[in-house]
Amino acid sequence: MSSSSPELKVLSTVTVTKEGGILKRITHSSSSTQCEMTFGIFLPSTYDANKNLLPVLYWLSGLTCNDTNFEMKAGPKAFSAAEKYGLAIVMPDTSPRGDDVPDKPDCYYLGKGAGLYVDAIKEPYDKHFKMYTYITEELPTLISKEFSGTSQNLKSIFGHSMGGHGALTIALKANAGSWKSVSAFAPICNPTLSPWGKAAFDLYGVDGTQHDATILLSSSSKELAKYDDILIDQGDADEFLENQLMPQKLLDVVSSQKITLNMRKGFDHSYYFIAAFVEDHIEFHAKRLLLEGAN
Amino acid sequence: MSSSSPELKVLSTVTVTKEGGILKRITHSSSSTQCEMTFGIFLPSTYDANKNLLPVLYWLSGLTCNDTNFEMKAGPKAFSAAEKYGLAIVMPDTSPRGDDVPDKPDCYYLGKGAGLYVDAIKEPYDKHFKMYTYITEELPTLISKEFSGTSQNLKSIFGHSMGGHGALTIALKANAGSWKSVSAFAPICNPTLSPWGKAAFDLYGVDGTQHDATILLSSSSKELAKYDDILIDQGDADEFLENQLMPQKLLDVVSSQKITLNMRKGFDHSYYFIAAFVEDHIEFHAKRLLLEGAN
Repeated sequence: MSSSSPELKVLSTVTVTKEGGILKRITHSSSSTQCEMTFGIFLPSTYDANKNLLPVLYWLSGLTCNDTNFEMKAGPKAFSAAEKYGLAIVMPDTSPRGDDVPDKPDCYYLGKGAGLYVDAIKEPYDKHFKMYTYITEELPTLISKEFSGTSQNLKSIFGHSMGGHGALTIALKANAGSWKSVSAFAPICNPTLSPWGKAAFDLYGVDGTQHDATILLSSSSKELAKYDDILIDQGDADEFLENQLMPQKLLDVVSSQKITLNMRKGFDHSYYFIAAFVEDHIEFHAKRLLLEGAN
Repeated sequence: MSSSSPELKVLSTVTVTKEGGILKRITHSSSSTQCEMTFGIFLPSTYDANKNLLPVLYWLSGLTCNDTNFEMKAGPKAFSAAEKYGLAIVMPDTSPRGDDVPDKPDCYYLGKGAGLYVDAIKEPYDKHFKMYTYITEELPTLISKEFSGTSQNLKSIFGHSMGGHGALTIALKANAGSWKSVSAFAPICNPTLSPWGKAAFDLYGVDGTQHDATILLSSSSKELAKYDDILIDQGDADEFLENQLMPQKLLDVVSSQKITLNMRKGFDHSYYFIAAFVEDHIEFHAKRLLLEGAN
């Protein structure tokens, strides 16, 4: 890490792969969310601060999660796969945090842990709930500055549930940076129709049609045309499948775009589902990131 | 599971491997610990209640853990490996539980979460703290009765830290059942000399020399002679290495017995260390269990 950033604080550094890849947990003062934010970053053993090479894969977690859920529960498999392909993985938190941040403590799908990867407009959420700007601008800028061995341009994004929604919408929006590939586990595919999405868009004062993967996909934008495939895995025993996630809505609007939707028999909404297929997703991204890197 | 055991309650069943292997979390009324005990069991997709075939690998967790730590944090890698070889994995709790169970809430290495895999003698711990009998007798009997597709005879044991101590000592004691192989991550190798071990032996009124892997190994018993190798992995950045774990003590007393002690550069005492090498341990056990099964 650069020594020019005293505002970054490394909370822990752990060796996590046989080859010597490491996981760091870092806090920093965020300009977009106006609070201390914590994220995890996996760096494979091939990371070299003096080379500007490694592609970066961003993971977005779901409701109630923070930066640690993925690293603890899917991390061991994900880090081995990222080590194999030579990728960094960045794992941000899901919302602003701290005593000053407004919350709905009795409602797991609103407030802290439920940033929905949008920028809130409505008071009192508009001050801190700027997860869209945090993920699309502030964090990639910070990562490429602080971890000089990562590539500025080669980045991809994936996530689970609310984070799957975040990954899909960020990858499909015109002003959200340049992503090389996108995939999702059990994403909220049509949040303007889901109770989770509707409640959050309303609370944060956000126009949901601008952050709905099904609507964005139906517009056949030039962002969409960049992706040769979009990979989605969905458990058929997922308790949220019908009322909140609705992957069929997304397939219904697709014409020429290729989407691979794998329905996985017996799997529910838990991290065991993510862990079972995370290597496939990392391979999916690695092929596209490394092909780009070679061009 | 047998329908003849109304005292068993399945808390959850989750699909965890691509092939359809499942993880169950189960509570039951324990006769040895006189309380409700909870354990996890992984059954690979090849499990068949009408065949009595699958070897069982018992995992013992460390201080402060319960039955869920391994399944959440090392589970995805462990279950894939167990699926590959066709093994069941049983993951018990580390102590008796419940409001009636005496505890030292301010001390993480005594009381609940710290059963040390011994049978307590001293009041008030002697009523519930019977983890040795629970692991060596009650639980294997229950597993083979309730999961009729598992083998009664083909079982092995491994664990981490306090659970590594438990695995080594149980595998080396004369009256602890018949185990086909044993391995450990960062075990407490000489607990009669470690602060954790001494405090717990004293509190529970147990003769530590009967539950100390280094002392048991030095006796060159016929139990020891069964094992062609004992596999131990130890991180060299483990904060407990020198004062609590002391693997060198164990090597010092060994003459002819083969022990493979892998010192792993950069790894600490966390579950990331276990996850990084758990596939190697499962392969180690599978080779021995499946060879036995074929004989």
